[in-house]
Amino acid sequence: MFNKVLVANRGEIAVRIIRALKELSIPSVAVYSEVDRDSLHVKLADEAYCIGPANSNQSYLNIPAIMSVAEVTDADAIHPGYGFLAENAHFAEVCESSGVKFIGPSSEIIALMGDKVKARETMIKAGVPVVPGTEQSLTDIEKTLELAEEIGYPVIVKAAAGGGGKGMRIAQNAKDLKKAIQTAQREAEAAFGNAEVYMEKYVEEPRHIEFQILADEHGNVIHLGERDCSIQRRHQKIVEESPSPALEEGLRYEMGQKAVKVAKAVSYANAGTVEFLLDKDNNYYFIEMNTRVQVEHPVTEYVTGIDIIKEQIRIAAGEKLVFNQDDIKLKGVALECRINAEDPEKGFIPSPGRLEEYIIPGGPGVRIDSGVYPGYFIPPNYDSMVAKLIVWEEDREKALSRMERALDEFFIDGIKTTIPYHLRILNNAYFRKGNYHTNFIHRRLNNEK
Amino acid sequence: MFNKVLVANRGEIAVRIIRALKELSIPSVAVYSEVDRDSLHVKLADEAYCIGPANSNQSYLNIPAIMSVAEVTDADAIHPGYGFLAENAHFAEVCESSGVKFIGPSSEIIALMGDKVKARETMIKAGVPVVPGTEQSLTDIEKTLELAEEIGYPVIVKAAAGGGGKGMRIAQNAKDLKKAIQTAQREAEAAFGNAEVYMEKYVEEPRHIEFQILADEHGNVIHLGERDCSIQRRHQKIVEESPSPALEEGLRYEMGQKAVKVAKAVSYANAGTVEFLLDKDNNYYFIEMNTRVQVEHPVTEYVTGIDIIKEQIRIAAGEKLVFNQDDIKLKGVALECRINAEDPEKGFIPSPGRLEEYIIPGGPGVRIDSGVYPGYFIPPNYDSMVAKLIVWEEDREKALSRMERALDEFFIDGIKTTIPYHLRILNNAYFRKGNYHTNFIHRRLNNEK
Repeated sequence: MFNKVLVANRGEIAVRIIRALKELSIPSVAVYSEVDRDSLHVKLADEAYCIGPANSNQSYLNIPAIMSVAEVTDADAIHPGYGFLAENAHFAEVCESSGVKFIGPSSEIIALMGDKVKARETMIKAGVPVVPGTEQSLTDIEKTLELAEEIGYPVIVKAAAGGGGKGMRIAQNAKDLKKAIQTAQREAEAAFGNAEVYMEKYVEEPRHIEFQILADEHGNVIHLGERDCSIQRRHQKIVEESPSPALEEGLRYEMGQKAVKVAKAVSYANAGTVEFLLDKDNNYYFIEMNTRVQVEHPVTEYVTGIDIIKEQIRIAAGEKLVFNQDDIKLKGVALECRINAEDPEKGFIPSPGRLEEYIIPGGPGVRIDSGVYPGYFIPPNYDSMVAKLIVWEEDREKALSRMERALDEFFIDGIKTTIPYHLRILNNAYFRKGNYHTNFIHRRLNNEK
Repeated sequence: MFNKVLVANRGEIAVRIIRALKELSIPSVAVYSEVDRDSLHVKLADEAYCIGPANSNQSYLNIPAIMSVAEVTDADAIHPGYGFLAENAHFAEVCESSGVKFIGPSSEIIALMGDKVKARETMIKAGVPVVPGTEQSLTDIEKTLELAEEIGYPVIVKAAAGGGGKGMRIAQNAKDLKKAIQTAQREAEAAFGNAEVYMEKYVEEPRHIEFQILADEHGNVIHLGERDCSIQRRHQKIVEESPSPALEEGLRYEMGQKAVKVAKAVSYANAGTVEFLLDKDNNYYFIEMNTRVQVEHPVTEYVTGIDIIKEQIRIAAGEKLVFNQDDIKLKGVALECRINAEDPEKGFIPSPGRLEEYIIPGGPGVRIDSGVYPGYFIPPNYDSMVAKLIVWEEDREKALSRMERALDEFFIDGIKTTIPYHLRILNNAYFRKGNYHTNFIHRRLNNEK
């Protein structure tokens, strides 16, 4: 096992990783930017080092500074969390060449899965269904227009290096499509320094279903069931649940098998997530694999009883999985609401500031993952997540009641939060029935555009 | 289902009950004493009424005041929690005769089980093993001395109306015993207004094992496995766990069957707990049945996934249990530490005061049940519990690591707490091996007397 692990992140995920390290009796090293001096992850770690100013480029993305701390502290592994350097193949490579274990898959796999076009090609070869579309980056506009006619409009243009909705455009017809390609290329160039885009059939009203994978370095791959992350606002997930209310056992089994196939096709190791779109007719299509832990991993932990972060660490240390697919049983239903420091009444503008009052919910089946505490000042420099509120109950109806109760007793003063917005989602009849898709916010909560 | 439920308690258990009511969409009514105006249970309830001064006799034990609030608010049921009026047969009777449902067993059962001598007689008749001893209250000293010779010293004298270690004396020989009877009678008279005492064989180094019972009003009785509550300081439980590290599957099955027999023998209805002593040779003896929810119920909730308070409410509303014994599967291990506002370095003197800092642990497998919040002033008038910290993991070793991690990240300032003491228990080699009994604190943590 590792002697010491550096946590190259901040906020709730840094806290989450430090907790796992403590439970494994592994000393932890935190890094932090100048504005994060009073952060909870700094308080909880065994050692903590300032690595630069608030600007992420100079701190949480500052590879030389992070590697220096690893060297100085004798850390023999680094956990990148999510965001920042988590899917940066170059960083993983730097770790590999420095003899520091990167807690995640190899830099090659990160690079492969980070290139959406290459990932798609790999999946087609492996016999995993993908959304019909171009097999490579768009070069020939005429051929693309022909293909669009063939697979049928609407189609969507996406950045090869993309994510988070950037460099993405929907086209209803040929004229739209020409324009969409140009716009997407421009956006992709600006956002990712890579103008490559590709085109796919636009799946209407899909559900976003993702399978959690655990794969050790000895070829054993299992999945921990799925998460339904269809409740999104501007392509950002805000509510997640496991299991999905849309999946029958047969379909779960089939998609789970495919997810394992995806991981095996690339000799994946460590935790990862295989994302699918599921259409109204239960057709499912691989969209991408995330080569890191997801924000929403706690819902899976609740229904399986497995600690995904500890498993990541064990796998990275070369240990074999101690359970097989048959050992994994989903029990009950877990939901997660991401509580953000944003004002839902003012277009979700960020609302940083001091937590004058901060009373969190508790009691049975309630879990809070957060990097804040009473009196803490939420800086304006990073993402706006205050806390993840996760609940569990034996069935979905009860889990919804529990979430409503928990949201209701979450007292935050000093900043605005998305708690009232979550209560609106929770009280929506479609959501309560489990009848929703990725356009839910747009279609069903009508004050949104 | 009930229209509105009055919660006749304070602190964490009042909060716990209000949470359950909210999840069942039942409006809740809190009552509070003058010093509890700013309590969390008052904040969380739908309605709240002051029922008198700090002194419990004038507030939380004030039956007319509580019944008036029930009448004024149109509450059709009362949940008594634990302590205060929870095992007061007279209060249950007042509720019954006022047409307000008492959420617990009938006044007759409370009275029967509250009389330890009668309860013991009932169990002997039902074929449940009890500790050998007098079958009734002591009247004839000579006969008692003869019996003591027969069953063998040491023996223990206990108050018939007893609990919490009051009116309890151990005797090693005949001379001791005479004195013990007199002392115990005096103490029992003072503490309970009832001088009746009885004598039992003193089981040396026993474990305290209790089974959680759920019984509906239609004759269905199941148990939810056991809790090991052997870690006690002056007869007060301070750490509890489920399942017990001492029970093999066969013994669990047998004792569980006996616990159900106890409940059936008295036509028990609602939640209850059957307490046993388990000796070194795996002999077990019924000691008493608690006719209320226990402080330590959350460990059972964690390993079974069943919400005991919601079940209490459903049962009281006349609903049938929706699961049977075969549906109950214990998964993983749960531990509870009772965090008290006491100074372990100064003989555990109470340490009331303002919570200047209050950062509670979170993350996977951590549950907090508490009636306090940051900035809250803990009044000196009631018991000293600040919070119950409950953790779950898939095995005991992991659960211990999680508890240690959670205790370690619990930051409380402004008052002294028992957190350092819990860390000592947790780091004790005997405790870690699960090798402990009710004398653990005395025998193994040696600064105690």
